[in-house]
Parts: sequence; C-alpha cells; structure tokens
Amino acid sequence: MAAHFGDRLCECVEEKGTILTVGLDPLLERLPDEYSGAEGGFESALNSIYGFCAEVLNIVSPLVPVVKLNSAFFEKYLWKGEEVYYSLVAEARKAGVIVIGDVKRGDIGHTAGCYAAGHLGGVEGVVLPDAITISGYFGTDGLEPFVEAANEGGKGIFVLVRTSNPSAGALQDFCDADGVRMFEKVAEVVGDIAGRSECIGESGYSNIGMVVGGTSGEETSALREKFEKLWFLVPGFGAQGAGPADCVRFCKKDGTGALVNSSRSIIYAYENQEYRSKFGDDWRGCIKQAVIDAKTALSNAMQDKL
Amino acid sequence: MAAHFGDRLCECVEEKGTILTVGLDPLLERLPDEYSGAEGGFESALNSIYGFCAEVLNIVSPLVPVVKLNSAFFEKYLWKGEEVYYSLVAEARKAGVIVIGDVKRGDIGHTAGCYAAGHLGGVEGVVLPDAITISGYFGTDGLEPFVEAANEGGKGIFVLVRTSNPSAGALQDFCDADGVRMFEKVAEVVGDIAGRSECIGESGYSNIGMVVGGTSGEETSALREKFEKLWFLVPGFGAQGAGPADCVRFCKKDGTGALVNSSRSIIYAYENQEYRSKFGDDWRGCIKQAVIDAKTALSNAMQDKL
Repeated sequence: MAAHFGDRLCECVEEKGTILTVGLDPLLERLPDEYSGAEGGFESALNSIYGFCAEVLNIVSPLVPVVKLNSAFFEKYLWKGEEVYYSLVAEARKAGVIVIGDVKRGDIGHTAGCYAAGHLGGVEGVVLPDAITISGYFGTDGLEPFVEAANEGGKGIFVLVRTSNPSAGALQDFCDADGVRMFEKVAEVVGDIAGRSECIGESGYSNIGMVVGGTSGEETSALREKFEKLWFLVPGFGAQGAGPADCVRFCKKDGTGALVNSSRSIIYAYENQEYRSKFGDDWRGCIKQAVIDAKTALSNAMQDKL
Repeated sequence: MAAHFGDRLCECVEEKGTILTVGLDPLLERLPDEYSGAEGGFESALNSIYGFCAEVLNIVSPLVPVVKLNSAFFEKYLWKGEEVYYSLVAEARKAGVIVIGDVKRGDIGHTAGCYAAGHLGGVEGVVLPDAITISGYFGTDGLEPFVEAANEGGKGIFVLVRTSNPSAGALQDFCDADGVRMFEKVAEVVGDIAGRSECIGESGYSNIGMVVGGTSGEETSALREKFEKLWFLVPGFGAQGAGPADCVRFCKKDGTGALVNSSRSIIYAYENQEYRSKFGDDWRGCIKQAVIDAKTALSNAMQDKL
C-alpha cells in the first residue's frame, strides 16, 4: 500500500521547498502558437491539449510538489477528453509529482462509491489521482465512500468548504443564530471525519483535507487553528485575485498545512507582457519563470507572516 | 432550436400520463443472469451494462416521459464507461424519452462553462442529455454558465436543493436566526434565476428546476407553492424509502410540476420476490410490471391528494 497521503504531502512539500501547486486548466484558444491551427475537431484539439499539458508537466514537475488537473477542461471533450485526462494523470505521476484530480464529484452513499472507484481507487492497471476534490453538501454519508477509498489506497480527498468564486459567500457564509456560518458547519463535518485515527498519518496530518479559497475573507482564517490536522487546498492565487498573503494565512508556522494553487497565471504566463518582454516567444521560459516567481512570492509572504 | 425544456416536460408528462422517471444505476453484479459471466475486465463489463441498459430503455421508454442516467455508475469504468453513458443518452433520445444526465457537476464560473459544454451543449454530432443535475453550493456565478447553455440549446438544469440521503439534513437544514434553512436559501438563489423571462416557456414553467428528495421531511413541502414556475426532480421513491404520497406532494393540482424518480426498485425489480413469483425468469416482465405498478401508485396518491 502507498504511504499515507498526508505524510506524502509533507515530504513532497519539504523536498520541493514550496507549497505552490500548479493547476492545469487547458483551453485550446489560449495555447501557444505552435499548438494552434488545430481547430479540426476533437482529435486535433485533444492532441494539442495533451501536448501542451505534457510540456507544462515537464517544466513544473521539478519545481512543485503537486499538480491539479481540472476535469472540466477535459470533459468538455466528452469521453475522449477524459481519456486524455487520465493519460496526463499518469504522466504527472511518472514525473514524480502528487496529482490532485479536481473533479468536485459528490452524490449519496452507494453512488458516491462508484465515483470513488473511478476517481480514487479500484481500477487495475490505470493510474488514478492521489487525491480528488469532492462536494460536502450531502453530509457525512456522501463523504464516507470517498474516505474509505482514500484510507484503503493511500489516497486523499479535499472537501469543498469555502470556494474562491465571487458569489460563494451568498450561500457559504449563510449564518445561524449563534453566528456559525455554513462553511464552518461543513468544515466541522469534514473535521470530525478527518480526525479519526485511521485517517491520521505519522506526520500528524489527515488524508482528508478541505478546499478554502484564498479569495475568501478574514472569516475563514480561523479554520487553520481549529482544524490543525487537515491539509487545506487553497485555490484563487493569481488570476483569481488572491495575493500571496491571502493564501499563506492557511499555513502553519512550519510552512506546511496549505497547498496554494495557481492555474491560469502560470500556464498562460506567456500572455503576460512582463514575461513576454523578457522571454519573447519562449513560452516555456515564461511558464518556468512564473513558477519561480510564484514560489518566491509565497515564500516571502510566509517570512513576513512569521 | 429545440423547444423549451419546461414545455417539453409538460407535453411528455401529458403524453405518457405519468410523472414517473426511471433511473439507470447499472451495477454489474446485479444484472440478470444472461449478462453474468462477463467478469473479464472493462470491455465485457461495459458490454453487459450497455446491453442491459438498452433493454431497459426499450421496456420503459413507451411507458415514462423521462429517464435519468446516473453518471457515477459509468465513470466507475473511466472514459470507457463515459463513452457508454453517451451512447445510452443517444439511445434514449432515439426512443423518444427526455434524458436527464445525473452528473451533479459544479464549479466556479469559467470552469462551469466547460462542464456545461460537455454535458449540455456545444458538441457537434454528439447527442447530449436534455438536462443535467448540478450543484448549487457555488451560488449564482457557478450556475450562470449552465443556465446560459440551457437557454441556448432548449435544455434544462436541476439544481441540488435538498438531497434524499439520510445525512442530508445535517447541512442542508442548517438554519439562520429567522428560521430560514440552507436548502431554502439555495432554493431562493435558484428560484431567482429560474424566474427570469428568458427561462420561462409557454407552459409557464422554467427550464431551470430543483432537486428535492422525496425522503425529506415536511419542511420541504412549502417549496412547491413558493416556486410555482419550477419543475422539481424528486429522487428517493422506492428503494430509498419515499412512498408515493411523499413524492406527489411536490405536484401541482394539475398533476405537473414534479418528476418522481425511481431507480433500483424498477431496474432490479427481478430481485423482488413478488415479481419473481409472477414472472419467474422473465426479468423484462418484472421491470415492465414494476413501472406499471409505480405509475399506478403515483397516480393513486395524486388522486388521494386532490
């Protein structure tokens, strides 16, 4: 059996010296010129997307501990896109990074078990992600099948607690008479499960984590202290508007505890005038520099915080 | 452009004389004997599942207005399962029923647009579902891309408001100081969008609906009157424990307004001793009779309600 997911995150973050996670959200129309002209249907679109993503993996894998593949950008191309998604999961694993499948699946008990099988474990001969994102809205019995699959296979899950989009607050900050917000209630349900002894690794971290947007307000900061055994997956860094300080607030003093994801600001760094003026048409150089800069920004913000 | 989704539901429900929806949740180990012995990997498993589901579609399509395909049971077999899912969507459309893809997808704005493209519209030459289920947890900006795709393509969406699983209440019944529950808050967000003039058809119904479990308590009943323009998709009838009266409470007096879904009690009716003793090994006969019985039960419950 694979090592505990929470422990593996600790090791990988230490080895790469960063909590930066790169998200792959490939859009055909934004790929570098060498992948354009591929407008002739699914096959060529997917060839371009695969080629680009594989190159991005080559560039970022030596530099970051984790990559996140967003399923939506592949599902746009139906089952053919899904096949490419799974190929890239395998490529990323081969490159030595931990892979989060950002699938945001969720359903009731027995159905959730089928999602868990296809996305976390139970398929022989196919490399599946190390962890996936899932919905928390169903409550405990919608989570259990995923937790079981994670425990059995050395895998992890990140439950959506507070998302990074502008309208998230309207529902997720919904508040009871005692001032408890909906996202805190979801966090409690997740935290209860994550704290079970069978979920905790040698590092003290659980294999069950939560998604908390870097763009969320000060009211989410208290989650860090309250749920000390959980890894947080923090989306929103970069293009979505969260700065480095907004994100490292979810780190512990030792620098662990949060994975900060940036997708578009990194994989489309060659659209950024700052990088273009430095690297010209070398889009690979732009991406690499954007990773290095993002790592430095997070590292500086962490120093400032201490 | 296809006719308005809410209008199509009205027509189809009237034509078939029922609000019963049959859900396809195929599990290899529960298929009839003639599909067993197919334990040799994905290909044979999927052949069996496809064969069984196609047969079920033949049996139920003349009898019900809508079928619901649950994506999880196909995703268990990765992209190969997804291919079968889309094949069955096309088969069902050919058989003249409205198809709901029960995918429960959800993500923030631009990413939700990719899900909408792959599951509702935007793919030439491939038949996609008439409607899908989606998560409401992200709030308005997570819904908009799906609404846009629905409006453009004569399609529909059903947003998860109150699910049918035992632990749903722990989070979805979370209550603010004024006694408003989380599911009511989600319903409000959905209702606001659903009521836009561009979403309303000639029937007065919107193409945006909500999922409300038949197993939920009395507290969900008020949703019917409050959101009169919305179709409700009501899971939980049968194996999950909701009786016919629990489900038809979401119908209007004219019998429209709710689609009541039963999955396992119907597609596995041949496991039911009552049907076996009548039909023996004729599993097709068992399924057909279970549909007829479920229709009668709903129809009687509707009469009782009036």
